[in-house]
Amino acid sequence: MTKFTQQIEVSGHLIDSLILTKIFDKIMDLQGEFTVEEIDIGKKKKDQSYARLQIIGKNQKHLDNILETIYREGAVSKTQNEVVLKKSTKNCVMPDTFYSTTNNHTQIFHQKKWIQVENMMMDKCIVVKGNKAYCVPVRDVKKGDAIIIGENGVKITPPERPREGVDVFEFMGSSSSSERPTQHIAKKVADDIYNTKKKGGKIIIVGGPAIVHTGASDSVAELIKLGYIDGLLAGNALAVHDIEYATLGTSLGMNVQDGTLAYHGHRNHMDAINSVFKAGSIANMVKSKKLKKGIMYECVKNNIPFVLAGSIRDDGPLPDVITDVSEAQREYKKVLKDASMVIMISTMLHSIATGNMLPANVKVIVVDISQPTVTKLMDRGTWQALGIVTDVGAFLPMVIQKIKKKK
Amino acid sequence: MTKFTQQIEVSGHLIDSLILTKIFDKIMDLQGEFTVEEIDIGKKKKDQSYARLQIIGKNQKHLDNILETIYREGAVSKTQNEVVLKKSTKNCVMPDTFYSTTNNHTQIFHQKKWIQVENMMMDKCIVVKGNKAYCVPVRDVKKGDAIIIGENGVKITPPERPREGVDVFEFMGSSSSSERPTQHIAKKVADDIYNTKKKGGKIIIVGGPAIVHTGASDSVAELIKLGYIDGLLAGNALAVHDIEYATLGTSLGMNVQDGTLAYHGHRNHMDAINSVFKAGSIANMVKSKKLKKGIMYECVKNNIPFVLAGSIRDDGPLPDVITDVSEAQREYKKVLKDASMVIMISTMLHSIATGNMLPANVKVIVVDISQPTVTKLMDRGTWQALGIVTDVGAFLPMVIQKIKKKK
Amino acid sequence: MTKFTQQIEVSGHLIDSLILTKIFDKIMDLQGEFTVEEIDIGKKKKDQSYARLQIIGKNQKHLDNILETIYREGAVSKTQNEVVLKKSTKNCVMPDTFYSTTNNHTQIFHQKKWIQVENMMMDKCIVVKGNKAYCVPVRDVKKGDAIIIGENGVKITPPERPREGVDVFEFMGSSSSSERPTQHIAKKVADDIYNTKKKGGKIIIVGGPAIVHTGASDSVAELIKLGYIDGLLAGNALAVHDIEYATLGTSLGMNVQDGTLAYHGHRNHMDAINSVFKAGSIANMVKSKKLKKGIMYECVKNNIPFVLAGSIRDDGPLPDVITDVSEAQREYKKVLKDASMVIMISTMLHSIATGNMLPANVKVIVVDISQPTVTKLMDRGTWQALGIVTDVGAFLPMVIQKIKKKK
Amino acid sequence: MTKFTQQIEVSGHLIDSLILTKIFDKIMDLQGEFTVEEIDIGKKKKDQSYARLQIIGKNQKHLDNILETIYREGAVSKTQNEVVLKKSTKNCVMPDTFYSTTNNHTQIFHQKKWIQVENMMMDKCIVVKGNKAYCVPVRDVKKGDAIIIGENGVKITPPERPREGVDVFEFMGSSSSSERPTQHIAKKVADDIYNTKKKGGKIIIVGGPAIVHTGASDSVAELIKLGYIDGLLAGNALAVHDIEYATLGTSLGMNVQDGTLAYHGHRNHMDAINSVFKAGSIANMVKSKKLKKGIMYECVKNNIPFVLAGSIRDDGPLPDVITDVSEAQREYKKVLKDASMVIMISTMLHSIATGNMLPANVKVIVVDISQPTVTKLMDRGTWQALGIVTDVGAFLPMVIQKIKKKK
Repeated sequence: MTKFTQQIEVSGHLIDSLILTKIFDKIMDLQGEFTVEEIDIGKKKKDQSYARLQIIGKNQKHLDNILETIYREGAVSKTQNEVVLKKSTKNCVMPDTFYSTTNNHTQIFHQKKWIQVENMMMDKCIVVKGNKAYCVPVRDVKKGDAIIIGENGVKITPPERPREGVDVFEFMGSSSSSERPTQHIAKKVADDIYNTKKKGGKIIIVGGPAIVHTGASDSVAELIKLGYIDGLLAGNALAVHDIEYATLGTSLGMNVQDGTLAYHGHRNHMDAINSVFKAGSIANMVKSKKLKKGIMYECVKNNIPFVLAGSIRDDGPLPDVITDVSEAQREYKKVLKDASMVIMISTMLHSIATGNMLPANVKVIVVDISQPTVTKLMDRGTWQALGIVTDVGAFLPMVIQKIKKKK
Repeated sequence: MTKFTQQIEVSGHLIDSLILTKIFDKIMDLQGEFTVEEIDIGKKKKDQSYARLQIIGKNQKHLDNILETIYREGAVSKTQNEVVLKKSTKNCVMPDTFYSTTNNHTQIFHQKKWIQVENMMMDKCIVVKGNKAYCVPVRDVKKGDAIIIGENGVKITPPERPREGVDVFEFMGSSSSSERPTQHIAKKVADDIYNTKKKGGKIIIVGGPAIVHTGASDSVAELIKLGYIDGLLAGNALAVHDIEYATLGTSLGMNVQDGTLAYHGHRNHMDAINSVFKAGSIANMVKSKKLKKGIMYECVKNNIPFVLAGSIRDDGPLPDVITDVSEAQREYKKVLKDASMVIMISTMLHSIATGNMLPANVKVIVVDISQPTVTKLMDRGTWQALGIVTDVGAFLPMVIQKIKKKK
Repeated sequence: MTKFTQQIEVSGHLIDSLILTKIFDKIMDLQGEFTVEEIDIGKKKKDQSYARLQIIGKNQKHLDNILETIYREGAVSKTQNEVVLKKSTKNCVMPDTFYSTTNNHTQIFHQKKWIQVENMMMDKCIVVKGNKAYCVPVRDVKKGDAIIIGENGVKITPPERPREGVDVFEFMGSSSSSERPTQHIAKKVADDIYNTKKKGGKIIIVGGPAIVHTGASDSVAELIKLGYIDGLLAGNALAVHDIEYATLGTSLGMNVQDGTLAYHGHRNHMDAINSVFKAGSIANMVKSKKLKKGIMYECVKNNIPFVLAGSIRDDGPLPDVITDVSEAQREYKKVLKDASMVIMISTMLHSIATGNMLPANVKVIVVDISQPTVTKLMDRGTWQALGIVTDVGAFLPMVIQKIKKKK
Repeated sequence: MTKFTQQIEVSGHLIDSLILTKIFDKIMDLQGEFTVEEIDIGKKKKDQSYARLQIIGKNQKHLDNILETIYREGAVSKTQNEVVLKKSTKNCVMPDTFYSTTNNHTQIFHQKKWIQVENMMMDKCIVVKGNKAYCVPVRDVKKGDAIIIGENGVKITPPERPREGVDVFEFMGSSSSSERPTQHIAKKVADDIYNTKKKGGKIIIVGGPAIVHTGASDSVAELIKLGYIDGLLAGNALAVHDIEYATLGTSLGMNVQDGTLAYHGHRNHMDAINSVFKAGSIANMVKSKKLKKGIMYECVKNNIPFVLAGSIRDDGPLPDVITDVSEAQREYKKVLKDASMVIMISTMLHSIATGNMLPANVKVIVVDISQPTVTKLMDRGTWQALGIVTDVGAFLPMVIQKIKKKK
């Protein structure tokens, strides 16, 4: 039995960030055994900890399964091996035992050196080119690409839990609940946006049409105008509803300003779509002064990149919408590059999509009136997301008000 | 077969308020037949309509079942009979075929006269004393009470749907959705509170502890202070959390003002309870200046009646809580007498309880972050309720702000 | 003032199907006036009713607005005019005053004849070619197409409410609630599927991945195998999870059969995608016997058409996925042609998409654990949908069990 | 500064059960400092761990606050002091600095001995009588009771997380999600009920009226009949709906068996209440054979204790209902004594109430269609609860079916 063992080590904030707990959990979930050979817990709170464990499996396959699992939690083999590469035999096809990525910071041991993997996302493969390593989606795999197989030589660094900071993440913990002091949370979010921007951070908004329905579009437009937002990721619906509201004053057939029913309510939605087709594009509508306010207007005016991804549900969709979803994913990724903070508002579809593309160290705030939506995003792997269960129509105006007071 | 027929008539806004539709529906649901003998639809929109129908059942029992059902929708027998009374044989026991009330305006035909039933509520019986008729809950039935049995001689007037008004009810229709312009709804609610008060109306708040958790308790306290509220119906939790927040600044272990974790967070809840027991009552705490702000404080200071109903879930409960629920129901009813408007905030338990005690013509606004909560209240018979699906911690401060602007 | 009037008439089950109520409502919502000139309510429940009204507006524009609105509820101008046509000046562009469709049965008066509009959907325009009329989405409009403008000559027939039938729609009414006897509803749905099929109806399933996560995929696969299903509309996720479950036995990292954690849980999802790319397509996987059971397998084996629409959230997506959403919409429509019944399971995205493509007379059943999802579909215009709020993992096996007993 | 330090120690499954993580967290949340003086992590997975820390505060008050907080997570002062007692000066009043309990296993150091506190519940005080210690609610405190003040001499043992077991808790982890294989979960719950009973465990059901509305009452009745249930805790509504269904076949006005509308639907609810008042009690109804099946019938027949707690929302309430909530709490507690497993079904009110009365080591399963309900129970301190988000009308029949197969 002693043959099926492996020494691993792990370091970092083992206790604080639950790293050791998760490793112990996984070993036990998989019915493995372990011996703690050495443990050195940081004496003070900023100190790093270190542990060396002997992992014991029932057979080689069992041991491999355990190791594969705990490597993903930050454990590293004591005797580090080189990554093993295998060539793709066909476009869009990975070798059978391809290494499937997490969204954590990842390094590989290749030609005796640790190389950081670029463009990190979850559920992808790693392609090695020369002394560079890239995280690549299956559709972008090319025949001949050298792809990492197995778990050897891959090292993950789980993110530290934020501590003693001043941001809303520390305030809320990781939970989502509607039973929190909303005005205070709005202030914390305002602070966080303000401070992120002040430090030169990049802030992206991912938004759904409920922003317009609930009357929060003026707030979002103002946030863009004030220079806080560096990109907008959405679908057809947000743009159509924003343009309908900006040009006809209605949303879902109701005059947003005074709440009366609109005469042409029913067809205003289609009218807005037609007017963009007539102009040729949203930018053209702005140029020809047909579109003079709103979220899309501010994006165009302020040169903020926006990507509208098509969906099967779209009316139209607008000429600006990228109807090919694989292409839209690539464009989303470009806008997300080096983002420090992503604010997701009332759209499960685009939020999960964006979550899938983000490394785990990017701050994610999700604002939605439905708790299960928030939960689902975290269940899909974007566990760093901070969920705020509130009414965006009331919450976003509060946030803007508080940001403007800071200026 | 022609023997099993009965002529009925109905008048009012038959089309507009769906009265005729509902009567047709019920007859068909019960597989009866009908002939429209006369119909006179109001020519203009304010005109009343009138219809006379012949109802046909398969047998006498079938006919009776149909009639019993449509009488509840406002149909009246063409040949009006006197109500039939039967004595209760025992306290808390109604005769087997007792007439079970709706929450609609109800009259009875007794000794050749139409008498209005007082104290109207749903799911009760009607007791006749001399030339007065009262709606009475089963627990208050006394041996010897003369109770109406069967459906003869009872006439119901379904409420008209509000039309062309200016209030939030007309604005929203009867639906509840989170996809509405929140700021505008807040303005409408503010207008409605303001106008109701200006006309001398009585406004009651029914509230749960989420008012405090979400940071909206200052808003509710201010609404009371400004004189808009005539009564508060709640449970132990609202009072405890309000007093904890007012005396210790915390709610659920968090400092509400700055959102930091409280040192004694865990036990502050129990501390607040103990402090009321020590003072003897909430009013004593105000008198001895131990309680100096908040919802309960404003109630005491402004002589606004409040009733705290006990529940099995209570910590404590406070000495002010009425632990006997039947007694608490009686006290709730006293406060609700002649209310024009009831605002229910984040409490399904007390909202359904209150809904059960209200006649159908009282305006009811339900504010909750959960749509199913709102739906459930309507399903339970308080169908006149207007549901606003929002975050009370953001919504109520908006309402107050807008009311104060009006003054 | 009398100049701004127009005589309209309407016939059908005016009371029963709320047609007259809705017309009165709309006139009053828009602050118009009306006079009922003639009304003839069907004497018996199967009889049709008829009404002739004089509509009065404040000015021509006001009158037009009212008329436009009530025409959509089934009112018809007494003096019927021909439709007015205008040519599209550019691909994808409709004339400014284009007629925007509803999902109701629609006829146009063209060259002295009533023509039925084909391919009916909501929120599109109507193109007339010779003596045919088609409902056309904006992206399919070609330069030169003759498009109906204004409201003249368009007649809508609102669907009757189902009455005295035996199906689940009659049983449930139009409401959605989780407080219904689930086993009985399952039986009604089973009856409805069985009877629809017996009468030669076409049944389409629209499904999300929760079918697999909740363990209901064997039930759906069996329903297909038994010949009840004529088409499957889904996205990438349903197919990937189904294939992961069929080939590796896992869903979201858990062995579905015994509920233990899977060793390779994390990467099985990506493994399933890779295996389809390796085979080239789902059909190829079936041919090469790599895929031997499940929903997708049964579709391929039984030649049931399936359409997988891409979304921005997709992992992969699979080679079978149509990544262009406009193209996917066209393929969805083909499968939906002449459907009698559509069963939507646990997917808001594809359900709303499908709802947008369906005429109002197609039966729609929506099964989801979230009540707001069901509500949202109806709010988006698919108001004929019957919502069943339940757990698909428990509900669908019940339905299958009950269908199999019938055979 | 070194004056404000204290040595503490802690032992158990420090890593696995997150004990050390929580202690580190709390110290940092409160901005304290610590030094790890000794740590001994169990070498193998069943081994206990031990740690000794030096805690450092900014001043004595700060240090005390930190200590107070971490003592609640299982830390123990190295130099153990005796508990400090203070007499209550008045009924229902605790001394100002009373020790407020958790729901964890608790011991006190009194007269040089460790004594286990009996009747453990959260948010109460501890009364010492001779060499016994009791957990006592504020309303039961008597003048003169010796009550523990401060944190000295109190030791808490946080429960271990269940590991490597076979029950549904291990299977599900602690999360609640609707995306789990329902049939498998039903099997696990069935196993757990079966095994708990086989080992002589006591199982209590806490239930709401949705059991009846969703058609699951036959399943619950059968579970009682089969001898699996040792007590039923509910409110008025469950009993009324159960008796209405058992005697009249209806629930919420619908015939549960065939789903048709009931003639007397509207008043059946009140009829059921009246029939119990007529008989005098539920037991009398069973005796006189007026009640012959259902949940309440099986309780009476099989001598299973049931407690019906009154609430402000009650119709009636039934003569069997305890209308005083403090009295009802005492009766609930009696039934809960020594329970091994509590199954909470579709009732937030009674579930939170029961959760408040349970020590943390009792297994709690919560079944509800609403995820926020499940979350709220855990947020209220019953964090050991396992949430199953499903439709009880479909889930419970599955559980029964699977239990019966085992017999």
